[in-house]
Amino acid sequence: MNDIRVVIWGLGAMGGGIAKALLDKPGLEVVGVIDRHPDKQGKTLSDAIGYGHSQVPIKADPAAVLLPGTADLALVATSSFAPDVFPELEQAARAGLDIITIAEEMAYPEAQHPELAARLDALAKACNVSILGTGINPGFVLDTLIIALTGVCLGITEIKATRINDLSPFGPTVMRSQGVGTTKEQFHQGVAAGTIVGHVGFAESMQMIAAALGWHLDTIEQRKEPIISTVRRSSPYAVVEPGMVAGCRHTAWGKTGGKTLITLEHPQQIRPEAEQVETGDYIHILGVPEINLSIQPEIPGGIGTMAMAVNMIPHVLQAAPGLWTMKDLPVPAAWLGDVRRLLDTRRHTS
Amino acid sequence: MNDIRVVIWGLGAMGGGIAKALLDKPGLEVVGVIDRHPDKQGKTLSDAIGYGHSQVPIKADPAAVLLPGTADLALVATSSFAPDVFPELEQAARAGLDIITIAEEMAYPEAQHPELAARLDALAKACNVSILGTGINPGFVLDTLIIALTGVCLGITEIKATRINDLSPFGPTVMRSQGVGTTKEQFHQGVAAGTIVGHVGFAESMQMIAAALGWHLDTIEQRKEPIISTVRRSSPYAVVEPGMVAGCRHTAWGKTGGKTLITLEHPQQIRPEAEQVETGDYIHILGVPEINLSIQPEIPGGIGTMAMAVNMIPHVLQAAPGLWTMKDLPVPAAWLGDVRRLLDTRRHTS
Repeated sequence: MNDIRVVIWGLGAMGGGIAKALLDKPGLEVVGVIDRHPDKQGKTLSDAIGYGHSQVPIKADPAAVLLPGTADLALVATSSFAPDVFPELEQAARAGLDIITIAEEMAYPEAQHPELAARLDALAKACNVSILGTGINPGFVLDTLIIALTGVCLGITEIKATRINDLSPFGPTVMRSQGVGTTKEQFHQGVAAGTIVGHVGFAESMQMIAAALGWHLDTIEQRKEPIISTVRRSSPYAVVEPGMVAGCRHTAWGKTGGKTLITLEHPQQIRPEAEQVETGDYIHILGVPEINLSIQPEIPGGIGTMAMAVNMIPHVLQAAPGLWTMKDLPVPAAWLGDVRRLLDTRRHTS
Repeated sequence: MNDIRVVIWGLGAMGGGIAKALLDKPGLEVVGVIDRHPDKQGKTLSDAIGYGHSQVPIKADPAAVLLPGTADLALVATSSFAPDVFPELEQAARAGLDIITIAEEMAYPEAQHPELAARLDALAKACNVSILGTGINPGFVLDTLIIALTGVCLGITEIKATRINDLSPFGPTVMRSQGVGTTKEQFHQGVAAGTIVGHVGFAESMQMIAAALGWHLDTIEQRKEPIISTVRRSSPYAVVEPGMVAGCRHTAWGKTGGKTLITLEHPQQIRPEAEQVETGDYIHILGVPEINLSIQPEIPGGIGTMAMAVNMIPHVLQAAPGLWTMKDLPVPAAWLGDVRRLLDTRRHTS
């Protein structure tokens, strides 16, 4: 079997990290990189990410990379939003590539863009390719992992989960989008203006869980509240004085007939330990049996997203044509050997 | 769509619990029960399990139940061992039924019975049915859940997991098979004689993890040690005086080139809290990133196994023909609505 040939579309923080991981994987070759940032044009992949020995040139024009028959799979890491990545997914599918994207809304596109999801599914089938949205969250912690845990339950009345993380390692874009370092008033203005966005993915996680369990949600309510610090906190890209905002407590409730079935909470802030808040991923299923899960500290978001994107490659290569979500494909798994051998043995007998 | 028609093969503690769960499920009908115990002959299902209003008669002769075209799926809960259930799986497959079994060795039959696994896979394909072994452990806690967690990792050097449970609710058979209430000498004699068996499933869990990750294990070593109690412990079916055996600490190591890659530990005892041991399921992945997961208390074994068997029904009905394992099928999920509606919408667009 030849190497699996991968195109990376989007060489930002996530795409760059994915590229590093892929360069280390046996049985797989990065054959193309698409990124329209002017500073990257003409550079090789390894020059741009400062890692490895890849001579693959970075190109701004997708059509110059997506030549028929030259690649097997595209990894799309350009935007969080389904409508933004749709033209890219369409172009890659028409070139005959299977696709993995970390666009948050693509983790369950039917949640907010059902028409777009139907079009992508039809397109994928017409082009004989499979498409998956994944990531750490949405994609795993607050949806796939919860769904997997429900497998041990005979009945469930309610699901509650919380992901408490530390934003300190992130850059200025994340500080702004979570309102870190603002005043309470600025925070509420930012939420109203749409510049402080909180977490992208609650609708997707909620609807993925509901669909897996056969629940119908009448409404999904969301609230973004400022996490007011009582102490001074600082990180490389933000300083928070007492009384100012250390981050955004974003909560979502999925309800049916006025009753809350799913509560997902994701307070994101810098230095939560400054006020004795322990980071972690927490899942509480009220049912038969009751389940209490903790992962401490939380699964790190950046590495986790890169890993999910890379690790789902064998599953997507083997999936039937169509648009898939994490609940539809086999459980994610790190693959540590040659991906081609894994593809041969994924079905243990054949 | 008609009701999904299920045959239950084996109406012991697990089969009976599965039957109760199935009787509550909309869109699904128990159409046959096979059990050869003389006391159950002629009884109806509901008489035998003391639940519901099922008039389905219990029959000893499988051929009298497995009539062509009368059922969709068989749930086989008769034995822990693959060779024991093989004739039953064969008979159900030839009758055209998809199959779920909770036989521990069937969770990954290639581990100890590769020829039998190959025969079952070929048979399933010839009969156009799908076959799955599942359960809480093997089947979930020490394999599927670990595999799912590795999905967030870019690299892994070692996996360690421990399942600490309380045997107090279980009956005399389990007390004997774990050596509860024996002396240290009796325990070692029982292990040597094969009457104290510890946990059934380590080889299966180890090989499922290894196959998912692309690892090769040279050896799987196992050790069964007595858990000597320093205090008096008692349960409905056992009394343990200080200095006697409260249970069996069963540990397995999966190694390659002398290096341990996977350590699975399953100490099973009555009343661990008597010596301040907290029950729970613990997974520790040493890798990038490092992951520490706890589920406290542990997922209960009995309900968990029943739930896994019931909850995998939609996945098995929709799987391609063949022998499957938990790593090959979509993540398990509790299904709380009508199973037929779930089958319609499992692929979110179609």
